[in-house]
Amino acid sequence: MWPLRVISGVFVVSQLLVTGSIGIDSVDAPTGSCRDCLGGSAAYFALAARTLCPVRLVGAVGDDFPDEFLDVLKSRNIDIAGLEVRQGSKTFRWHGKYSDDMNDRTTLDVKLNVLVERGPVVPDTFRDSEYVFLANNPPELQMSLLDALDSPKLVVCDTMDLYIENSRDGLLELLKRVDGLIINDSEARQLTGETNLLTAIRAIHKMGPRHLVVKKGEHGCILCTGRQMLVLPAFLTEKVVDPTGAGDSFAGGLMGYLASINADRDDEDAWRTGLIYGTVAASFTIQSFSVDGLIGLDEEKMKRRIEELNSMIKP
Amino acid sequence: MWPLRVISGVFVVSQLLVTGSIGIDSVDAPTGSCRDCLGGSAAYFALAARTLCPVRLVGAVGDDFPDEFLDVLKSRNIDIAGLEVRQGSKTFRWHGKYSDDMNDRTTLDVKLNVLVERGPVVPDTFRDSEYVFLANNPPELQMSLLDALDSPKLVVCDTMDLYIENSRDGLLELLKRVDGLIINDSEARQLTGETNLLTAIRAIHKMGPRHLVVKKGEHGCILCTGRQMLVLPAFLTEKVVDPTGAGDSFAGGLMGYLASINADRDDEDAWRTGLIYGTVAASFTIQSFSVDGLIGLDEEKMKRRIEELNSMIKP
Repeated sequence: MWPLRVISGVFVVSQLLVTGSIGIDSVDAPTGSCRDCLGGSAAYFALAARTLCPVRLVGAVGDDFPDEFLDVLKSRNIDIAGLEVRQGSKTFRWHGKYSDDMNDRTTLDVKLNVLVERGPVVPDTFRDSEYVFLANNPPELQMSLLDALDSPKLVVCDTMDLYIENSRDGLLELLKRVDGLIINDSEARQLTGETNLLTAIRAIHKMGPRHLVVKKGEHGCILCTGRQMLVLPAFLTEKVVDPTGAGDSFAGGLMGYLASINADRDDEDAWRTGLIYGTVAASFTIQSFSVDGLIGLDEEKMKRRIEELNSMIKP
Repeated sequence: MWPLRVISGVFVVSQLLVTGSIGIDSVDAPTGSCRDCLGGSAAYFALAARTLCPVRLVGAVGDDFPDEFLDVLKSRNIDIAGLEVRQGSKTFRWHGKYSDDMNDRTTLDVKLNVLVERGPVVPDTFRDSEYVFLANNPPELQMSLLDALDSPKLVVCDTMDLYIENSRDGLLELLKRVDGLIINDSEARQLTGETNLLTAIRAIHKMGPRHLVVKKGEHGCILCTGRQMLVLPAFLTEKVVDPTGAGDSFAGGLMGYLASINADRDDEDAWRTGLIYGTVAASFTIQSFSVDGLIGLDEEKMKRRIEELNSMIKP
């Protein structure tokens, strides 16, 4: 599959843009640990999505960002023209620790660094991007990045507990401007004040996004679109090394698929299939530390695992 | 569907026997409360299974067991010839309270009463039962009840944390004698010492049961048979009133289906379909207090919900 289509006799490739954090992570888990590894929501997203379509990356790192991380990002169908290496700034850093069952994690240390400075700039060459994922960022920044684009075909965003709590008005304004929202179950409950997940989902629908995905970690995810609902389990595996980035890889697999087939804004069936790609992308991420599970991943490997997943979910 | 088959020119109906607790429950939940309602694993199981096939109930209650509860049990394709109303004894009683999100429950009071006296007796007319569910009981009692049967075609059991902890040897002996085991995720982890659920499942397989179902509450269940795996979400509903008995209703729906089609011991596909019936049976149970969601339930209602469930799980 390659996102080609013919417009006025010319082959055109769909362009998927992602903005979000690119960071340096350290992780402690029962399975081992990694120090100063490539991380950040946009990095996971881009490395997952690029298996299915070209990706444009918009973000900022500091002058401490290792060259080898830049090489990982730019060598794999990712256009890093929107990745600013800001001199005199430091890269976002996160250090987390997972519990014995991998279901809880504690942030041991976080340094936002460049993330709290001015936002990144969308290059003019990226303005025509049709598919857009606004990874976790302050809603105001997400909106200003969206303003820098011409007329995207499909805009999807993520958010987090911090902005639900502290930037609620901005978030509600953003939700009216996006086609889709991808959040986790605790965020869905926090955003709506509803404990029942289906009630929460219906309440979020009324806030704007036509397509809503609620991620439940090891328990999979729920897609709710205008008329349809899909509940999908996670790919069951004995090898869970590091869950960091699973959610962003999921979003990358999903959006990469949507862009690859030039999905229309209203195509609910495409989202159902996209959920499979997202689930499989996340399953590769958690089997290694950092982005290692995504390096070397290609569409063939994804398709083989999709077959395995399908045999797990069809009664 | 009715579990008819022809043997030597005569229609024969499969007989599904269940042994387990029949009790009087009180429940406090964010949705309300019930006092002195019909409960117990065998009651939920029988009322779920009887929508699909005739059920034989084996258990004991005390002389305080209300006549109206007996009427509920015996009026609905359930043969209560094995239900002993023991004079001078008291019925098992349980009082539990659910947390705000319904995912945790605390036992406020439990009186085992008749359950710690001598076990119930399997009537001679029940000895030819082909499908058997040994609901939660001490493993030694489960085995002695099994010894009272001629040659069942399919034997499935449940257990609980107490027996995994205190009757491990007996439980391991029982597991070698059953075709299937239905337990919840925390019990699977406790039984094996493994935190990864798939690793736990593979370890339990080696203990004996060919068919293993791990229940994950609101997150659905996992079926692992000899060669196959199926991960199924729970039926997504906004109306969750009282989760008590969901697991036993699940087992009732599953076993009721297996008996209704005269499933062979080795029929893995039947278990996959049965999981759908179990999931749907559980979904009716949780929508009301006590067994109210199962009273009035019939195969048509189950089939309509199965259609809804199928539309939720097919990508």
